[in-house]
Amino acid sequence: MAAEMAEQPRVLTDLVTRREAIVSSVRAVLPQPLRAIVLIARGSSDHAAVYGRYALEAACGVPVALAAPSLHTLYRVPADYAGCLAVAMSQSGRTPEIVTVLDRLQEHGATGVAVTNDTASPLAEVADVVVAMHAGEERAVPATKTFTAQLAVLAFLAEAVGQPPWRAEEWASVPAAVQEVLDDASVAEDAVDRIGGAPGLVVVGRGYLYASALETALKLKETASVLAHGYSAADLRHGPIAVVERDFPALVLATPGPTWDDLQDLVGLLRERGARVVRVAPGGDLTLPATPSEPLVPLPVAVRGQQLARSLALRRGFDPDSPEGLRKITPTR
Amino acid sequence: MAAEMAEQPRVLTDLVTRREAIVSSVRAVLPQPLRAIVLIARGSSDHAAVYGRYALEAACGVPVALAAPSLHTLYRVPADYAGCLAVAMSQSGRTPEIVTVLDRLQEHGATGVAVTNDTASPLAEVADVVVAMHAGEERAVPATKTFTAQLAVLAFLAEAVGQPPWRAEEWASVPAAVQEVLDDASVAEDAVDRIGGAPGLVVVGRGYLYASALETALKLKETASVLAHGYSAADLRHGPIAVVERDFPALVLATPGPTWDDLQDLVGLLRERGARVVRVAPGGDLTLPATPSEPLVPLPVAVRGQQLARSLALRRGFDPDSPEGLRKITPTR
Repeated sequence: MAAEMAEQPRVLTDLVTRREAIVSSVRAVLPQPLRAIVLIARGSSDHAAVYGRYALEAACGVPVALAAPSLHTLYRVPADYAGCLAVAMSQSGRTPEIVTVLDRLQEHGATGVAVTNDTASPLAEVADVVVAMHAGEERAVPATKTFTAQLAVLAFLAEAVGQPPWRAEEWASVPAAVQEVLDDASVAEDAVDRIGGAPGLVVVGRGYLYASALETALKLKETASVLAHGYSAADLRHGPIAVVERDFPALVLATPGPTWDDLQDLVGLLRERGARVVRVAPGGDLTLPATPSEPLVPLPVAVRGQQLARSLALRRGFDPDSPEGLRKITPTR
Repeated sequence: MAAEMAEQPRVLTDLVTRREAIVSSVRAVLPQPLRAIVLIARGSSDHAAVYGRYALEAACGVPVALAAPSLHTLYRVPADYAGCLAVAMSQSGRTPEIVTVLDRLQEHGATGVAVTNDTASPLAEVADVVVAMHAGEERAVPATKTFTAQLAVLAFLAEAVGQPPWRAEEWASVPAAVQEVLDDASVAEDAVDRIGGAPGLVVVGRGYLYASALETALKLKETASVLAHGYSAADLRHGPIAVVERDFPALVLATPGPTWDDLQDLVGLLRERGARVVRVAPGGDLTLPATPSEPLVPLPVAVRGQQLARSLALRRGFDPDSPEGLRKITPTR
């Protein structure tokens, strides 16, 4: 896991180099007018899809949905997807249900894009367009370099469909920001001290960082077997905050932008309940680089989550590379 | 909470009586052709929306999305929703962000439907069409009768947009099925015995019952402060299953239909890991009535979840009516 985490600046540098080509390849097949966008994924890829859900709609304003795979694999409901862009994401390109859903939506009118590491995979074979992440073989079960590569590709897709809320020049700072986080791993140890032996915790973000909260929680579950759950700040307030009792750890992801005040307000609420708040923010307990801006900050934030999960797993005596009972390719239907 | 749970057969009987009128009122304003459907909700209402996400797409085959409210309330991204149906759900009709998002999507072309108890609320005022649930004032913080009323209304909306996978005659059996579950509350006590003092548990379903898993987990969190998390069977396998260690309780929701085999397979996997499996299924530990069929079974299943949450809360010394720190109307933006 650590070796693959360390590869992220290189993988991202390569992707940034290919950015314009990827944007053009998707723009060339884009339905006009664009009716809706559907994202198809499971696991970590599904959390990348949640990021994409925000970035894509922010760029073009059309409805963006996350697919419900069983409707197509098990229920075989009617499908009317003419004029839609369907984006399927799978590291291996070999999860059967992801292939089936993309194939079926294309059959019913969608233009399909596969985002994968393996351009010879079944997913790549069915897709109208393939975006190769070239993240290289991923051997640790918890996805790391594939996840940040997926975020970058989804941001490129946002550029292909409209006007995203970031400047193209910001891409140059992304691999360096990820490297900066990797170079400063010791802060994760301090955060692990604060989490201690707690059986569970919540990870909270909002907007672009909601996906980061979901993914950080998944990494913590997979590697450290801790009952970590990711929420948007608004969702947490609508009920789940009831589980936050005295000394319950709460990891709060925040960055300057339109969601900042909402997260500061939530930190106050969590502290009133006696929570042990760990802030992942510029100047927080787990610091973040000053650039890139909010819509691209989920890339370095993902690395903070990986560091935390790996450190907590080691502290609790787990092998972060091979969580018990998980396989690299999950053959769900 | 118990009093409001007991009102559910009456609320549902009233809704079933008004079914054709509700279907007609929505059919009358339906955009033709229908581009996409967007559901706007938080908390329990958002879990009803997940059920609606399946029922609506199954009925008409068009893309169905859950709204990301912050895109419209905090980021104010461009919006292109012409030809879309937007459905906003809020018991009180007074959660600011739900009102703002429906208003904004309508402004940008969507036809808006408000599903609420309060026809004089801000949400009802902005909507093109109002569907009144008439569930009556809900005083306990955890939503019960509103949730099952929302499921019924969403199923009616599925009838308005297409051909749903159930027969109209099945509605007659729904209030009785809910009453049958209410009359047989003792099984929840047995399930509580099996959960014991565990700090956390998972609740798993798939397809139509995925929403039930999310909502049952939320009820358990809200009332009993237990770290309960809802998953689809496929999502659980893609990583979170790592938290299921020996004696970890797992509540599995299953009913005959296309997802049955997948859930039976999962039960095997959970038992291999030593989980304490509690089956909510016809003939299971928490039994279910033989009718209605799978797409409508989430109504009686919701009541099983409510019983379990209430019993566990009482066993652990919590007041299920007033969870600490929660309010009936959550003023998220």
